[in-house]
Amino acid sequence: MPDTQRFHDEFDAFKARLLEMGGLAEERVRAVVRALVDRDARVVEQVLTGDEPLNRLQVEIDDRGFHLLALYQPVATDLRSIMAGLKINTDLERVGDLAVNIAEAALRYFLHPPVKPLIDIPRMAGIAQGMLRDSLDAFVRQDAGLARDVLQRDDSLDELKTQVFRELLTYMLQDPGTIEPALDLVLVSRHLERIGDHATNVAEEVIFMVSARDVRHQAGS
Amino acid sequence: MPDTQRFHDEFDAFKARLLEMGGLAEERVRAVVRALVDRDARVVEQVLTGDEPLNRLQVEIDDRGFHLLALYQPVATDLRSIMAGLKINTDLERVGDLAVNIAEAALRYFLHPPVKPLIDIPRMAGIAQGMLRDSLDAFVRQDAGLARDVLQRDDSLDELKTQVFRELLTYMLQDPGTIEPALDLVLVSRHLERIGDHATNVAEEVIFMVSARDVRHQAGS
Repeated sequence: MPDTQRFHDEFDAFKARLLEMGGLAEERVRAVVRALVDRDARVVEQVLTGDEPLNRLQVEIDDRGFHLLALYQPVATDLRSIMAGLKINTDLERVGDLAVNIAEAALRYFLHPPVKPLIDIPRMAGIAQGMLRDSLDAFVRQDAGLARDVLQRDDSLDELKTQVFRELLTYMLQDPGTIEPALDLVLVSRHLERIGDHATNVAEEVIFMVSARDVRHQAGS
Repeated sequence: MPDTQRFHDEFDAFKARLLEMGGLAEERVRAVVRALVDRDARVVEQVLTGDEPLNRLQVEIDDRGFHLLALYQPVATDLRSIMAGLKINTDLERVGDLAVNIAEAALRYFLHPPVKPLIDIPRMAGIAQGMLRDSLDAFVRQDAGLARDVLQRDDSLDELKTQVFRELLTYMLQDPGTIEPALDLVLVSRHLERIGDHATNVAEEVIFMVSARDVRHQAGS
């Protein structure tokens, strides 16, 4: 098997692992927000203590990227793609950490009666999950258009965060007994916003990667 | 000039730029927290709009790292060090973003009368700045001992964050009029905690890098 074929096989495996990691991270966000809404402490505990598979995958992906760089010494587009993949790996690991932060806030929230029915927080989670999924799709398909679409959705996440904050502030001002649990909901909404920020980082990497390729292609044509 | 000499010169320049970036990031944290304490909106505005030099430096460091990888195709320790430097670059850029987040919270905070004299928040900032400075020193000097020392200081930052939260909660419960400004102080303390987390990331990179070198050295001895 020629070296370039072997490189591309290993690079495909690297990307497949990244997708797997993205799926795991997204699933943890989905599970913890669902459990927050359902007040299901058992599922929250599972998310809280279940970070290990994601951490193992992060180390494996880092090693694969390192191996690709050291063994094949790629240049130009291939090098940029591996570098982008390694950055995305860091972003996905942070998303896993944020799921843990949400789990911690959820357990504190369960110590009090519910402040209100949760509508906007699961909506924020849905947007953040979609951004994460699509930014990774954009990476694998090198689709700058999809990546740009992800960037735009970040604004609606910001708006929802402000809306959640304003509404919770009203509850806190009316009834100081809600301050502690309401603060935890504010934190959850900020963790979700940060998950959107990580998806935004991924999308920006993709746009940078694709535009570098385009520039090179134009120069060569 | 032989290639290895040229590589080491360029690698030194890469590290010098990282140190410069670390100094800029640290200075922004120092300035914004000082301005929060002094209620100096002018300085806060400067931090809010002054992210550009840091962003430019991040792109330059990324390019330098990419150039080092593409041109010299380093392996083993050198490769690991450049990869570590590129990860640290991302962490430092996020510290700059967090200084902007603190500036935003500070401007909102200034809309209300002060909740209390700020003692623990500047203390947190001092610890976070020291962690940042020492983790970068540890990177440049490849000093795993200093990096481990940085990791330990993260606990005191966590404790102060909890203390700040408990104290502000008391104010909010006693006087709902303090809820809005007190929430912004809670956010500032969390931003400072995250700056400590980034310094922790840097320190962990250093420990990983040095231990990989040590393992290799042992195998070769």
